[in-house]
Amino acid sequence: MRVLVLGAGQLARMMALEAIPLNIEVQAFDVRSDQIVDPINQQVLGEGLQQALRDADVVTAEFEHIPQVVLEPCEQSGKFLPGSRAILSGGDRRIEKALLQQAGVASAAYAEVHSKAELEAAVQQLGLPLVLKSALEGYDGKGQWRLKQIEQIDAVWTEIAQFLKQASKKAKQGIVAEQFIPFDYEVSLVGARGKDGQCVYYPLTENHHVNGVLSVSLPRLAHPLQAQAERMFQLLANELDYVGVLAIEFFAVGDRLLVNEIAPRVHNSGHWSQQGADTSQFANHIRAVCGLPLGDTTLLRPTLMVNILGLDQLPDCVLGIAGVHLHWYGKAPRPGRKMGHINLAADSTNSLGQRFAELIALLPAEDFPELSQMQSRISIS
Amino acid sequence: MRVLVLGAGQLARMMALEAIPLNIEVQAFDVRSDQIVDPINQQVLGEGLQQALRDADVVTAEFEHIPQVVLEPCEQSGKFLPGSRAILSGGDRRIEKALLQQAGVASAAYAEVHSKAELEAAVQQLGLPLVLKSALEGYDGKGQWRLKQIEQIDAVWTEIAQFLKQASKKAKQGIVAEQFIPFDYEVSLVGARGKDGQCVYYPLTENHHVNGVLSVSLPRLAHPLQAQAERMFQLLANELDYVGVLAIEFFAVGDRLLVNEIAPRVHNSGHWSQQGADTSQFANHIRAVCGLPLGDTTLLRPTLMVNILGLDQLPDCVLGIAGVHLHWYGKAPRPGRKMGHINLAADSTNSLGQRFAELIALLPAEDFPELSQMQSRISIS
Repeated sequence: MRVLVLGAGQLARMMALEAIPLNIEVQAFDVRSDQIVDPINQQVLGEGLQQALRDADVVTAEFEHIPQVVLEPCEQSGKFLPGSRAILSGGDRRIEKALLQQAGVASAAYAEVHSKAELEAAVQQLGLPLVLKSALEGYDGKGQWRLKQIEQIDAVWTEIAQFLKQASKKAKQGIVAEQFIPFDYEVSLVGARGKDGQCVYYPLTENHHVNGVLSVSLPRLAHPLQAQAERMFQLLANELDYVGVLAIEFFAVGDRLLVNEIAPRVHNSGHWSQQGADTSQFANHIRAVCGLPLGDTTLLRPTLMVNILGLDQLPDCVLGIAGVHLHWYGKAPRPGRKMGHINLAADSTNSLGQRFAELIALLPAEDFPELSQMQSRISIS
Repeated sequence: MRVLVLGAGQLARMMALEAIPLNIEVQAFDVRSDQIVDPINQQVLGEGLQQALRDADVVTAEFEHIPQVVLEPCEQSGKFLPGSRAILSGGDRRIEKALLQQAGVASAAYAEVHSKAELEAAVQQLGLPLVLKSALEGYDGKGQWRLKQIEQIDAVWTEIAQFLKQASKKAKQGIVAEQFIPFDYEVSLVGARGKDGQCVYYPLTENHHVNGVLSVSLPRLAHPLQAQAERMFQLLANELDYVGVLAIEFFAVGDRLLVNEIAPRVHNSGHWSQQGADTSQFANHIRAVCGLPLGDTTLLRPTLMVNILGLDQLPDCVLGIAGVHLHWYGKAPRPGRKMGHINLAADSTNSLGQRFAELIALLPAEDFPELSQMQSRISIS
């Protein structure tokens, strides 16, 4: 069996590593170069999407910002999972917000905004503060503005108007204004839905960001909001007739979850599952889209994940800490680029905390800003 | 970093899968074709050993029956681990037995035999029954004869003489006569020794064979003979100044272990470590030969392994049993060929037993002979 993945980054690579033992071949379509590559070593296997679509048994994606010209033939192939609607919902905040409403899943109240007049109307309707988000291509905190006080409205709109002017002509960029959610913390739920509609869920994961980019993920055993998150997952996945791994990011406000955003794919906050679960999110995505039974998602042991940004090497001694696993992506380093991640596992939460402290002591502090402070914020227990 | 593996079979493939997340590239030298291949998909990357030896940072092996013409340049490269002496000890029973004696490690008394007269002398010296083993290329029960009664000596020697006549002229085949060990059961110890001489050990694994080929492996937590096995491992590994994963097969006779044979490489009886240990034998071999710290080898949870022979497909529903992991080798099927293995894990030995029963019920009985009977022999508790 052969799976074609749209996108040739680390998510496709980690899917391939899990597919190989199942005798399932993964090829990747590099949207920028129009080439078919081996997602493990980027070796070119062919040119153009059409032949690859014909040769694949299943087509899936590792990202949601897929040009329409690519998405259409995938959908037409009849092999594309989780399907265009799911991808578009992940890639366009307007479609995502409409989906959330339609599925009856709580999220921040919002309005679409195309002009300063509409922004003023949104302030009237939703109050302040507002978070203004680009509808397309917003990720890792990019394309976001905050409007805290009405006096800022001219300055903020000037910035946004400039942004919209520079936006690609091909796709219709827009702005979604959302009520600011004074959340207590952020969690995500990664789950998988099979072709038979059965869902499996990983434990809710607490996510800690630095400068808008995920830094540490920590799955929580028996989180009190787990059941609420699973209900919301099921509503969304059923609404989309979803097949594959789906990730939902939530704001937790007291005992209530609001969806922040969805990612119709394997997700950075599920990387810990490579060491912390019997079946990783990558294996379960492959299983789901290939119509195979889904694997066990329960937390095997306390685990956490730390992202590696901008670096392509760490001191060897890091591997000397028991339970440390390095997952490099084989990419060329650039400042801020996601280069790999560290999974850390232990037999007990106490031991995990100790190992985390050992790990932090060995990591170059300048490349892992705020990790020490984060350790105290993350109560590992 | 690049590791060149002599041999391009499943062991090299599984090493590569563990090396990739460490940003370590694994290439394989296919001894039969003289080609350098990607051990995951057998894609040809180059021709000839010499250039590959120059380009590699480390050279290692997935098998011990390596022609001298290959072994010599590897040794000369100065990059070969665990080194020629270890490989020769695994590949030639005469050298192996001499090593065991030199290291002071118990194994069956033996004599080299080149003629019927020497066989008669061996019977005098060692008694009956004897097990006669070809010195070279004996594995999975091939090249073995039993001499139970003195009346059989003519018939057995006729067979052996025929075997020796057909043997390759290039290598000097021979026969080792060993005292038959009336063992209670067979266990193996897989461990790794780092460049600094530190050793780590997986738990002793009980091995169950069918027709001389490994069928089921079951690691045992806190086995009473674990410490004895580790002492013998250390004697051998230190004698060889070994670096990498080393497997030792033992006969257990009461509370005593006798070495049956050693394998200077990752070993079929350690495949369970992919699911049952924090760091698999493949990852630890890569770590050892690359000079990285060794990973945790303790048993995470009850696990067993079942070999898949001759088949390249199983019913999909097998993956529906929680804790089942399929590891296919991507090979063309031939009767009796090792095509893949199943790892089965569970939270408790009781649950492992139940899952094993479920698994057996789903496997085609004709392709897994004696598995049902084996279940009752393996007391999973």
